[in-house]
Amino acid sequence: MRITTLKKSLEEQRLDACLVTNLKNIYYFTGFLDIEGAPLSLLVPLDGAATLFTPPLSYEAAREKAGNCLVEKVSKGVKPFNRISKELADRQFSVVGFDDLPIARYLQLTKDVASTRLSHIPSLVGKLRRVKDEQEIDFMKKAAELTDVGALAGMECVRAGVREYEVAAEIEYAMRRRGSEGAAFETVVASGPRSAHPHGLSTDRVITRGDAVVMDLGAVYHGYRCDITRTVIVGKPSSNQADVLNLLMEAQEDAFTAIREGVEAKAVDRRARTVIAEKGLDRYFIHGLGHGVGLDIHEPPTLSPESEDVLEAGNVVTDEPGIYLPGFGARIEDTVLVHERCGEKLTKARYFEW
Amino acid sequence: MRITTLKKSLEEQRLDACLVTNLKNIYYFTGFLDIEGAPLSLLVPLDGAATLFTPPLSYEAAREKAGNCLVEKVSKGVKPFNRISKELADRQFSVVGFDDLPIARYLQLTKDVASTRLSHIPSLVGKLRRVKDEQEIDFMKKAAELTDVGALAGMECVRAGVREYEVAAEIEYAMRRRGSEGAAFETVVASGPRSAHPHGLSTDRVITRGDAVVMDLGAVYHGYRCDITRTVIVGKPSSNQADVLNLLMEAQEDAFTAIREGVEAKAVDRRARTVIAEKGLDRYFIHGLGHGVGLDIHEPPTLSPESEDVLEAGNVVTDEPGIYLPGFGARIEDTVLVHERCGEKLTKARYFEW
Repeated sequence: MRITTLKKSLEEQRLDACLVTNLKNIYYFTGFLDIEGAPLSLLVPLDGAATLFTPPLSYEAAREKAGNCLVEKVSKGVKPFNRISKELADRQFSVVGFDDLPIARYLQLTKDVASTRLSHIPSLVGKLRRVKDEQEIDFMKKAAELTDVGALAGMECVRAGVREYEVAAEIEYAMRRRGSEGAAFETVVASGPRSAHPHGLSTDRVITRGDAVVMDLGAVYHGYRCDITRTVIVGKPSSNQADVLNLLMEAQEDAFTAIREGVEAKAVDRRARTVIAEKGLDRYFIHGLGHGVGLDIHEPPTLSPESEDVLEAGNVVTDEPGIYLPGFGARIEDTVLVHERCGEKLTKARYFEW
Repeated sequence: MRITTLKKSLEEQRLDACLVTNLKNIYYFTGFLDIEGAPLSLLVPLDGAATLFTPPLSYEAAREKAGNCLVEKVSKGVKPFNRISKELADRQFSVVGFDDLPIARYLQLTKDVASTRLSHIPSLVGKLRRVKDEQEIDFMKKAAELTDVGALAGMECVRAGVREYEVAAEIEYAMRRRGSEGAAFETVVASGPRSAHPHGLSTDRVITRGDAVVMDLGAVYHGYRCDITRTVIVGKPSSNQADVLNLLMEAQEDAFTAIREGVEAKAVDRRARTVIAEKGLDRYFIHGLGHGVGLDIHEPPTLSPESEDVLEAGNVVTDEPGIYLPGFGARIEDTVLVHERCGEKLTKARYFEW
């Protein structure tokens, strides 16, 4: 079905075929997810069956999972990409779209197959992937449940005397033992002055009383990711900390109510930014409001002042305002499914309360 | 120091500059590791200071960590790569080497800066990174200790009735709570018939008596990875299982004794392959003996029949023979530091004993 939709795009764009090498895109079309770096290629011609070319090491697993395409083992000793060059030349394609290519392979292909024009069209697959179908939404809901488990585990174990990475360990363990396939991205546990770094990851810093602790984390289920951030204050929040947290919750909620099909992504961002600007803090909101999530943790559409995206039903996006003052930062985030008339929060873990 | 060495290579190869965009390479030169997908660029000219170009979101963290180069914030609204195009044009470089580029950026740069020739030379940085210095070896030894902790945790919790992903959870938790920055790669816990897949990852399969369970895992410390595999049999091994495990240990050890500076990587592979061939099982050893490890889990040099690499002191490589029969597979693996006259196993976790 997804391959059929891709073929329609090929026809519209007058392409003879699409060469897919991004492993998540290959999984999207075939159901086979290989390990990072595996040199797979899926060739989808406008006419005829799609073929997945695999190295010997991946062949058996690919055959088991990829039922909707031919699977060809590229024999040992043949560089997998020489096989693709030959295929493109043999089939006499004149224009082939591709999703992505490592630079060495791109240079090799353009040299080997002079008669075929290669056209980089990331949107060929990106356009499909940004609208999630029912099965994908089921997987993302399960990923969201596991993500909530991680957020709660983190909130429960944060206290003075614990190291940031120990909190990260508890978060990831709680998700993993319930079936998460790993961390959706490197877990952020950024405490005290480190909370001012939006991408603070986690260190051996010992959390102390009065710290803000930003925890940004996600689970993975059937390859689909989810994303949540909760900020906790250790002990009683200062009035400044409380004000910032309240403001973020208000901004997040205001943006959330704007989410629906047909709305401009930048308008959703503007809602949150306006709430924060009313308190004069918008210059500390140094990133976009959100991003799409799915097989990748960051994918289209983008919610930011510069975005030209328009939300569609089936998009899954984050709603994550943040304020980063010198020495103290905070962010809250949920993952939201876009419907025709509203948004639906997939992550539901409680907020920090005081 | 590392930048100075890079500049020497630039001079030898008559390049005016090197453009570094791989985030691990940027970390290698500057000490600043950004999150996946961050659009950083490090420009190292033959003459003068290196400059790290960062988006606003990464600027403060980059300034804190990257002490040996200029750090320039690319203002909001300017696509980071337009800034690089301008820099290359302004400086009138004629040939610039680069380590890697996302295809869209490569196409943009070649269009924008017609007067500069871009030359893809992954070995410019790769050649440096494959020989680890003292600090890197310290980090890798610490990563190896954490990796051993994970392997032992896995061996302790494998038993009939446990799901594969539960074992993966225990492995990752044990490493993480002692300071590992995450899993070096998606942990493999492949049991029963799944052991026959070299890259089996982990599923919800319930482990049963008589299963072989292949656990392939690694920790991360200061960005440096380590890699270990242990295969366990649940209950008393069958004579076939015992024979295969014994053969793998013999093959691994035989290859290990061949590791030293100056030896051809393919000769080390051949040692293991010969031991396995003597029992007629070499056609089930379907991958190379090993790979380099460092900031990446797979990096040069490669130990395989086709490899043209020669080992150097300071290389860190895996020694991992595997045999994959229909329905039953096994692999054992350690990470080995290459010295002038011998190898040194960095991972030391006990083997499965019966």
